[in-house]
Amino acid sequence: MTRNPIPEIVIGRLPVYLRALTRLLEQGRQVTSSQELGERLGISAAQIRKDLSQFGEFGKQGTGYDIEFLVAKIQEILKVDRVWEVAVVGAGDVGHALVNYGGFHDRGFKIAQIFDNDPDKVGTSYKDIVVMDIAQMQEKIRKAGIKIAMLAVPASVAQEVVDQLVEAGVEAILNYAPVNLVVPPGVRVQYIDPSVHLQTMTYFLD
Amino acid sequence: MTRNPIPEIVIGRLPVYLRALTRLLEQGRQVTSSQELGERLGISAAQIRKDLSQFGEFGKQGTGYDIEFLVAKIQEILKVDRVWEVAVVGAGDVGHALVNYGGFHDRGFKIAQIFDNDPDKVGTSYKDIVVMDIAQMQEKIRKAGIKIAMLAVPASVAQEVVDQLVEAGVEAILNYAPVNLVVPPGVRVQYIDPSVHLQTMTYFLD
Repeated sequence: MTRNPIPEIVIGRLPVYLRALTRLLEQGRQVTSSQELGERLGISAAQIRKDLSQFGEFGKQGTGYDIEFLVAKIQEILKVDRVWEVAVVGAGDVGHALVNYGGFHDRGFKIAQIFDNDPDKVGTSYKDIVVMDIAQMQEKIRKAGIKIAMLAVPASVAQEVVDQLVEAGVEAILNYAPVNLVVPPGVRVQYIDPSVHLQTMTYFLD
Repeated sequence: MTRNPIPEIVIGRLPVYLRALTRLLEQGRQVTSSQELGERLGISAAQIRKDLSQFGEFGKQGTGYDIEFLVAKIQEILKVDRVWEVAVVGAGDVGHALVNYGGFHDRGFKIAQIFDNDPDKVGTSYKDIVVMDIAQMQEKIRKAGIKIAMLAVPASVAQEVVDQLVEAGVEAILNYAPVNLVVPPGVRVQYIDPSVHLQTMTYFLD
């Protein structure tokens, strides 16, 4: 049986469901409902049921969702039931913040490599990861088979670095530089752009 | 005439349209179409037309959108045709990165205040902004009438700081701490969570 591809917007909501469900688990909860999840996330219960139904039958009418089961299922769907090694390019403030970020642990990611072009930074350690010269980036990433990179370089060099990453086999890029990136088909980019988030909220301010 | 409220998901797409349109302007372009925008953003042309039509008639059949006009209109709708002062709480890596971020300029935001509880940081300058003691936060924010804050504190103290921000009059919070925040009705929170973005992409990896 071939299925229609799941819309990207649905995929985009799964990590948000996963985060909320994981928090419920941490709070000692075992069962939840689409109503409760919806209230926590500001998404309609019907939307949540519809999204999840694309992947199978996860809840029973009247008894709700078994949280632990649903967490495991979503982790499997999103392929974060494993640990992905990630490369960070740029060992400035953002790169440093990423290495110290507590939110990768248990969510499927491990920062394995960091690169910079500043001779003062190359060879120093961020936690237990030694900053490597960006000149070695393609070789190191290819050798480790890394598919995911976080880009924390100045906007002026971002595209050039991305071209190198793609050539080295990276297929998913999280971009912190305030610039639009061009990538070939099959490579994905997500943007961390605080202004976009802030502008979403100013609409509601007086 | 009263109108139905615009769905939040539509508001959430406007900043993304604005970013794409601004880039077209920077590239010297004057006119675009919902087709072109859609291709750049991975959103259907019909969706873009429908979203924009909620706010008025911005394009003409067959001639497309005047980019400068549309940019000005969206800025007005999102209330970023002005400059909002923003407070940053937490002068660590993330706070430092935010002060150095090039993407606030011309997008409606200016970091006006920074707070930390570390005596070694209080009194030092980040660019031309002096880090203030978090003990003064409520007074300073209230006095300046600041409505927007970016939260870059450890997860363990995030909720406590948010309670203080809300009491001081803050109504929009961009949260970098990997923790869910509870706020009263009328206060909005957006999350910067790199794991959520990464998990959106792993679905498509082999």
